Amino acid sequence: MENSLKNQAAIAGVGQTRYSKESGVSELSLASEAVANCLEDAGLAPGEVDGMVSYTLDSSDEIEVAQCVGIGDLNMFAKINYGGGAAVGLIQQAAMAIASGVCNNVVVWRAMNGRSGRRMGQGTGQQIVSSDLIHWSWYQVYGMLTPASWVAMIAHKYMHTYNVPNDTLASVATTQRQFAVSNPAAFGYQKPMSTEDYYHSKMVSYPLRVFDCCQETDGGCALLITSTERAKSLKQTPAVIRAVTQASVQGQEQMTSFYRDDIASLPEMEYAAKRVYAMSGLGPDDIDAACLYDAFTTEIVMQLESFGFCGRGEAKDFIADGHIGPGGRLPNNTHGGLLSEAYIHGVNNIAQAARLIRGNAVNQPDKTVDHVLVSSGVGVPTGALILGRD
Amino acid sequence: MENSLKNQAAIAGVGQTRYSKESGVSELSLASEAVANCLEDAGLAPGEVDGMVSYTLDSSDEIEVAQCVGIGDLNMFAKINYGGGAAVGLIQQAAMAIASGVCNNVVVWRAMNGRSGRRMGQGTGQQIVSSDLIHWSWYQVYGMLTPASWVAMIAHKYMHTYNVPNDTLASVATTQRQFAVSNPAAFGYQKPMSTEDYYHSKMVSYPLRVFDCCQETDGGCALLITSTERAKSLKQTPAVIRAVTQASVQGQEQMTSFYRDDIASLPEMEYAAKRVYAMSGLGPDDIDAACLYDAFTTEIVMQLESFGFCGRGEAKDFIADGHIGPGGRLPNNTHGGLLSEAYIHGVNNIAQAARLIRGNAVNQPDKTVDHVLVSSGVGVPTGALILGRD
Repeated sequence: MENSLKNQAAIAGVGQTRYSKESGVSELSLASEAVANCLEDAGLAPGEVDGMVSYTLDSSDEIEVAQCVGIGDLNMFAKINYGGGAAVGLIQQAAMAIASGVCNNVVVWRAMNGRSGRRMGQGTGQQIVSSDLIHWSWYQVYGMLTPASWVAMIAHKYMHTYNVPNDTLASVATTQRQFAVSNPAAFGYQKPMSTEDYYHSKMVSYPLRVFDCCQETDGGCALLITSTERAKSLKQTPAVIRAVTQASVQGQEQMTSFYRDDIASLPEMEYAAKRVYAMSGLGPDDIDAACLYDAFTTEIVMQLESFGFCGRGEAKDFIADGHIGPGGRLPNNTHGGLLSEAYIHGVNNIAQAARLIRGNAVNQPDKTVDHVLVSSGVGVPTGALILGRD
Repeated sequence: MENSLKNQAAIAGVGQTRYSKESGVSELSLASEAVANCLEDAGLAPGEVDGMVSYTLDSSDEIEVAQCVGIGDLNMFAKINYGGGAAVGLIQQAAMAIASGVCNNVVVWRAMNGRSGRRMGQGTGQQIVSSDLIHWSWYQVYGMLTPASWVAMIAHKYMHTYNVPNDTLASVATTQRQFAVSNPAAFGYQKPMSTEDYYHSKMVSYPLRVFDCCQETDGGCALLITSTERAKSLKQTPAVIRAVTQASVQGQEQMTSFYRDDIASLPEMEYAAKRVYAMSGLGPDDIDAACLYDAFTTEIVMQLESFGFCGRGEAKDFIADGHIGPGGRLPNNTHGGLLSEAYIHGVNNIAQAARLIRGNAVNQPDKTVDHVLVSSGVGVPTGALILGRD
């Protein structure tokens, strides 16, 4: 990694649409609005964008968004697979294109009618359309048809192995809701959640209750990535990419890596951690805040260990000590995250991380935030990102 | 483009499966076989691969191919949209990852049961699944349901504007078949095609006859890209990437860019040409052979002008003078191309280009081949690539 992506590029623009349960518009409209807002935020003319990246699951093709927004010639366009596993992969794509001179300005986005349109949480059970779904066919016959059911398998084993109480999950859910309560963009805005509320929510797949699961959201979120140098001349404080990587490791399936020797850990996330720490020269102690991928509460618990914020089996204590909450050592998802702000497939978590570096995020911590860690989807090919302030 | 991709990476391995009309195996099997053959060709252990790229249309996910072949940790994975428009985009992805230090060895592929499975030539007419298909809905009602019908619209206008005779198309088809006749991997192996045969083939959509259209093929093709330095220590003569780009421009639709002021040219291909010539420091006169994307014969005709091998409207003369045939100034698709070897969505054209640089291609020209030009799909967001010999 000698010739790495460290400090070469920065997030210079952040844009989003209203997050709702029924947008009333097309996904293309959401994507275009988010991208337009992002360019407006950065102060960059659409014609200056020359690269575009999104998710394979995103229904809006690059050229259609380009046409809607007024973007012209493109030198690079790509899509990334594996649902939320794509999130920071978008940033790596952009950083590679900029570092290698292919593009000057890359816009990335995710937009979806995730509640009024295709509801991902409802899972599969229909036709096998791509090769990785072959694996799902082994589990579907046992009723494991949804993301919650696949994640529960890993979560249950982890909690059993390390004697993790359900209160740990309750604490993650209520802590992130506490942040969302003061975030006008969030589903959880002005909707507090008590521990009692948490325990009254319906069990979906043990140990996961409804309040352990992320929102289903209609909305879009976009980010502009440019060179660190160029970012300094734009409107916002640059969120410099200290390190970014995608990560997939042995035994990797999409949500169902059940045939590994140890399923009570996240080896792809540990690989991502190793790479971003090596690339940035930073370690867990340097990270001031995090936006860890949180489709389910248990993913936060396990990732605290993957990224070395505490030892194996110690995340329950780290959380009980209040470290991921307001005023904590590692405020996590201070916008509410996917659990309580919106499920824009992880891109809204990157947006919050960029705002934390700018210093003007909702629930901005009192302390100085020099470095924020962000991760992509859990249990799938994934990635990690460290943003920093110059 | 000061910090460009010029000479940073090389194609160091080429692999393919048998090309057939009925593979009898899954697309995942084809993908894995092609990738394994490619690594064997390069002399690289699967465990050294750390990046994988394919088409959004490819049904084999990176992690499944990795598992089948024995590939381990991945730092980068991506897919590219727009059918054959992805082809050399795979190479740009790999080159970016290598140039920026993200990956050491990237394998790219396309594998499809294009005849026994999903037959792309049969077109659309069913549901609108992604935003770019919105456009198709404007044309479908007039019976423009297939790629041939969309390409015919452009081709007809071009031929009318520049007074191009049907003989020009016949010449492209028979010339490429002439090459295929001596290529054991080709559909056209030992199956000569006369001009009379050409004119006896069924009209599909004027001016396109069956023999103006590419094959429908079951098969897979894979390429290994590594640093130019590393490539020198592997088994094969490196095909050095002198320049590579993706390209999409104003008014870009997927196959149906009918609302441009001038539809008798290929502006995205002209943009790609401008970029690869600038990046490489080369011009049309430096190109010794080509593997231009040839889903349809007319695409070869028009691209000769896009890439500056002759002036606007002069391709008919360039072809009539025998320049794209054996012994010509610009032997094109000396394996038979998509028309007469196989339709592996353009990746088999890149494979042939790499072999031409190695000097051991089927129908290797007598002259020295220092530089080969390759293009991605025509009429869609596309790209171009120039390979060279050290």
